[in-house]
Amino acid sequence: MNGTMKALRKMKPGPGLELVETTIPGIKHDEVLIKVIKRAICGTDLHIYKWDEWSEKRLKPPVTTGHEFYGEIVETGQEVTHYKKGDLVTAEMHVVCHQCFQCRTGNAHLCENVVILGVDGNGAFADYIAVPEINLWRVPPEIDPELAAIYDPFGNAVHTVMSGPTAGKTFLILGGGPIGIAAIAVAKAAGAAMVILSEVSQYRKELGRKMGADRIIDPKTEDVPAVVKELTKGQGADVVLEMSGHPDAIAQGFKSIRKSGRYTLLGIPAKPITVDFSQDIIFPGINIQGINGRRMYETWYQMDAFLISGKVDLRPLITHRFKMADYKEAFEIGLSGNSGKIILE
Amino acid sequence: MNGTMKALRKMKPGPGLELVETTIPGIKHDEVLIKVIKRAICGTDLHIYKWDEWSEKRLKPPVTTGHEFYGEIVETGQEVTHYKKGDLVTAEMHVVCHQCFQCRTGNAHLCENVVILGVDGNGAFADYIAVPEINLWRVPPEIDPELAAIYDPFGNAVHTVMSGPTAGKTFLILGGGPIGIAAIAVAKAAGAAMVILSEVSQYRKELGRKMGADRIIDPKTEDVPAVVKELTKGQGADVVLEMSGHPDAIAQGFKSIRKSGRYTLLGIPAKPITVDFSQDIIFPGINIQGINGRRMYETWYQMDAFLISGKVDLRPLITHRFKMADYKEAFEIGLSGNSGKIILE
Amino acid sequence: MNGTMKALRKMKPGPGLELVETTIPGIKHDEVLIKVIKRAICGTDLHIYKWDEWSEKRLKPPVTTGHEFYGEIVETGQEVTHYKKGDLVTAEMHVVCHQCFQCRTGNAHLCENVVILGVDGNGAFADYIAVPEINLWRVPPEIDPELAAIYDPFGNAVHTVMSGPTAGKTFLILGGGPIGIAAIAVAKAAGAAMVILSEVSQYRKELGRKMGADRIIDPKTEDVPAVVKELTKGQGADVVLEMSGHPDAIAQGFKSIRKSGRYTLLGIPAKPITVDFSQDIIFPGINIQGINGRRMYETWYQMDAFLISGKVDLRPLITHRFKMADYKEAFEIGLSGNSGKIILE
Amino acid sequence: MNGTMKALRKMKPGPGLELVETTIPGIKHDEVLIKVIKRAICGTDLHIYKWDEWSEKRLKPPVTTGHEFYGEIVETGQEVTHYKKGDLVTAEMHVVCHQCFQCRTGNAHLCENVVILGVDGNGAFADYIAVPEINLWRVPPEIDPELAAIYDPFGNAVHTVMSGPTAGKTFLILGGGPIGIAAIAVAKAAGAAMVILSEVSQYRKELGRKMGADRIIDPKTEDVPAVVKELTKGQGADVVLEMSGHPDAIAQGFKSIRKSGRYTLLGIPAKPITVDFSQDIIFPGINIQGINGRRMYETWYQMDAFLISGKVDLRPLITHRFKMADYKEAFEIGLSGNSGKIILE
Repeated sequence: MNGTMKALRKMKPGPGLELVETTIPGIKHDEVLIKVIKRAICGTDLHIYKWDEWSEKRLKPPVTTGHEFYGEIVETGQEVTHYKKGDLVTAEMHVVCHQCFQCRTGNAHLCENVVILGVDGNGAFADYIAVPEINLWRVPPEIDPELAAIYDPFGNAVHTVMSGPTAGKTFLILGGGPIGIAAIAVAKAAGAAMVILSEVSQYRKELGRKMGADRIIDPKTEDVPAVVKELTKGQGADVVLEMSGHPDAIAQGFKSIRKSGRYTLLGIPAKPITVDFSQDIIFPGINIQGINGRRMYETWYQMDAFLISGKVDLRPLITHRFKMADYKEAFEIGLSGNSGKIILE
Repeated sequence: MNGTMKALRKMKPGPGLELVETTIPGIKHDEVLIKVIKRAICGTDLHIYKWDEWSEKRLKPPVTTGHEFYGEIVETGQEVTHYKKGDLVTAEMHVVCHQCFQCRTGNAHLCENVVILGVDGNGAFADYIAVPEINLWRVPPEIDPELAAIYDPFGNAVHTVMSGPTAGKTFLILGGGPIGIAAIAVAKAAGAAMVILSEVSQYRKELGRKMGADRIIDPKTEDVPAVVKELTKGQGADVVLEMSGHPDAIAQGFKSIRKSGRYTLLGIPAKPITVDFSQDIIFPGINIQGINGRRMYETWYQMDAFLISGKVDLRPLITHRFKMADYKEAFEIGLSGNSGKIILE
Repeated sequence: MNGTMKALRKMKPGPGLELVETTIPGIKHDEVLIKVIKRAICGTDLHIYKWDEWSEKRLKPPVTTGHEFYGEIVETGQEVTHYKKGDLVTAEMHVVCHQCFQCRTGNAHLCENVVILGVDGNGAFADYIAVPEINLWRVPPEIDPELAAIYDPFGNAVHTVMSGPTAGKTFLILGGGPIGIAAIAVAKAAGAAMVILSEVSQYRKELGRKMGADRIIDPKTEDVPAVVKELTKGQGADVVLEMSGHPDAIAQGFKSIRKSGRYTLLGIPAKPITVDFSQDIIFPGINIQGINGRRMYETWYQMDAFLISGKVDLRPLITHRFKMADYKEAFEIGLSGNSGKIILE
Repeated sequence: MNGTMKALRKMKPGPGLELVETTIPGIKHDEVLIKVIKRAICGTDLHIYKWDEWSEKRLKPPVTTGHEFYGEIVETGQEVTHYKKGDLVTAEMHVVCHQCFQCRTGNAHLCENVVILGVDGNGAFADYIAVPEINLWRVPPEIDPELAAIYDPFGNAVHTVMSGPTAGKTFLILGGGPIGIAAIAVAKAAGAAMVILSEVSQYRKELGRKMGADRIIDPKTEDVPAVVKELTKGQGADVVLEMSGHPDAIAQGFKSIRKSGRYTLLGIPAKPITVDFSQDIIFPGINIQGINGRRMYETWYQMDAFLISGKVDLRPLITHRFKMADYKEAFEIGLSGNSGKIILE
């Protein structure tokens, strides 16, 4: 498709984004062109907006940002066989190599050669985006387009929760950002007997309550391990999901988990963390899992199943909606912390 | 404790049971004596009552029947250290050897030398029963005594459901006897996206509906695999639980399951079954699991968790209550098939 | 590449193959053209040669046969990025859709839309073959080209053995065809404490001995379950691998396996099999696995590791070598059963 | 059995042990009395001998030390049913409660109420020891009595190696004490494609070579991660076993492991360790396992299987033998680090 389109781009190193007119991307033989209908802002987009250390190292402007979206296929490459014009889709934006050890042994989300669209390549904060067929996910008609636009972070939550047994287990979730909040609903849907959230922000506590947390602990005013032990008859949580990256939370997790428990880490700490390996990992026989991305594509089937069955209701997670033109306001609210997911239409 | 008690015993080979006066059992150093408060009738008890071929081979009368119960400890052996008089308990009635390969590798429910109390040794259809300490299960105060009395069959259901991934999966349950019915509620609690029950009896269909089945198929009037395929967008059920032992149901299961699905068998067929190994197992990469008993004691913790959290409501499963003296009426109703679980008080 | 080449083709329905001159295949943007250096004859090729019922239903002549090979890339499509001219490769010949549930959840070997080159599309019994980049496997320099040519059947053996715990286990392998024979060496390399082969043919018994079987049972003259029980102190084999498809062998497997054992099925029975589900699966808690193909690509990494480390020596498995022109003689020896793998150069 | 016996006891807080005359222990109804034939010195015994901080906190003298042994049953309690006088045994010396969550869910080695004989109760450095029947392990006649005496540390090695997939994997073992050295042989037997040992001591390097290490790195003179990357074509080790407790080794492990690898920790660091959670655990998707003790009793069956099959040859691990009377010399050699396992006869 020839012509130009609007896109929210990082045009040069430094804070902020620009809404510019740019060329509609061309597609390869195995790609499709998608007209974007809904987009959502990720924490990563906030980092890029602020232009932090990580962004400075990783991004090569000019680049179109955004990797959470929902849209309609408007053009297909010659070797595309499973999708056609008019199909409604979202996509896994980690474009992987399919040839490295990780890709070829069920861990494509850890690909050695990944290119993330919206970070390393042009993304979805635009009218159109080009995506390889092998990365597409067909959106079932039962699913709300706004929810289809947040499969990326919802997938982080599902991947983290589902990385071990869930049914009948007690979960402690450390940190109530959008992924932590989504994880509450996922853990409950996956059979958790009790889900405890530890979070300081009043706004996020309220979201956590709406998403089904059985108990919310404020780590500023309560002793997290003591409360967890009390709620679990002295035993500790079966599963701890670390979603904050905060050193205090990480330490509280180690003191709140039961022997032989599962400690799953998604939050990214800014600095190294000091841990008593003997008392906190080895003697109690703890299992620690580093998690990133989403399984390609077990996680996606799980998301469909949770939403279509109604076991997970993600609606309360979407708290704000803006036109793409009002992106500055949208990013400011995102940076304030007083939001769930923010949609750009 | 000296003295006599009432007990429902098989006094000699042949149908029926007798309510007799007999000696209160003595206890070994590692056993406790329990005053039985609630009992429940199992399908096995019905076989013993009818005196079928299996009973004839297995039982050595005289023996006190019954292996589902709830009671209070009234006496403890000298080497009992974790329980005391007044504790409220139920028990795993498979008394295992703790020395065979199965016992020592996490499969005590498959012990080579098992003695089942109520079948091979004196059981719980009596005022008192002696049980080894290592077999006791402390009943948390949150749990209804009647439900504590049915941990044995509830455990069969939980063990069957929990023998593989559950969250987000579609289950087909073949057969709506008490265990199949309980499995509906367990699968839903464990995160199943959809639970389909196949059952002919009107009474049991109604129970299935109360316990949460999303769809009930009548194999007399509907084409089970066709309905399952339609409900699963052509794919087939992720998990099939065979709870009937019926050859037709088993065949329907093979035609209703998806490739690489889990086919878990609990129902006991009376005769050998003919299967197309190539088309039904090997090409589609099916995994078949034979299941019996309950895991000692993972399953028991799962039962506590499901009941205490309220994720499973077993109350509708208990449909009848009798005094032990009215046992004949109780057994007749059990044999009619028009019942869930029957309690003997 | 333009021009013609020699190819061993099924030109029309019926027995036999023809060595003909045909066009060198063109390649798509994501494919490579490979000059074939070594080929091997599979049991499937023998079925196609004989033109049995399965072949008649499945094949659409004219088609070039053969799916086991080793070769050198001579041309690459425009979108091929990881391979270049001169690279030495073999390939997974199951060309899968990457879009069905099985493909997208780690079971691509069970793809709903698979096209097998050499069966459904043109294969490797030719001078050149076109293969998608995503199906290629780079052959490490340490690996003998003849062994690289048999990764397909070696992969069947590795997949079957590695479908559960192996180290310290006792294996019973039923049937000593090339895959069963390879499985002996794989099981030993993977830590099996004892590998027992059951096989009638003198030729194959001898191969089994060379590949490391600890004990070979002749099911014609010995009681397989009795011998296995004796060798395992009465317990039975931890793992049974069914590689024959023979009803008697399958029955012997059920009687030779221990409680909670793994029964893995690869051999394809010609007819339905009758099994005592109660005594042979449910009461003993057996786990049955239907297996086909090879994991894409866990199995391939395992093959590299076993060969490069020297833990598996496959050389004795290759018993015959022919020029492609002498294909009739090669197929006759394959059909006689008195061979391991046969190479076509 | 009445009378007195010789025993190596800690009589009061402080360094050293005393060889004294003491009463032969009585047995409970579920215990046996064992005449000890072989004993071995554990690292824990060295700590007790030196009287370090841990010993001071944990031990309550007087207590008989020693928890690695082989012996013959000379007396059985009234409720012992599976063993008799004359049986040759070793034992798991962790006497567990069988009632806590860990005990009842397959993790008895993490029992909340464990009593370790030889640490918390009287041990095996004596002529006789009393052990509960449920803790006994029958020694098969094929097994060398000296090796039966070291099932405890051998079990640590087997448990650590077998806590994840082994066959075809590359292992890096950090630290060549007796357990690390045993782990080399176990990993090789369990199918490891390559086993790399990192160790500084010349004596232990030599032992590592004898036990089958494919490559030994000296962390004093070589760059461990660089060498591991080179040996694994840039990828890193599939599995890292931390057996040293040393902070530098732990850091090297994180830099030597591949993405999604298994990092299993057995060595006990004396102080907290600082780790870059983001770069070393979360982004690469690492799985960390804290390990202690041995699985009761999967590990024990694995040990039997490895020794009886000859897949593991532990003989080179036993480097010294002393009479119990010469215990001082034995402990001095143990403290020097220039020994494998030391037997007390």
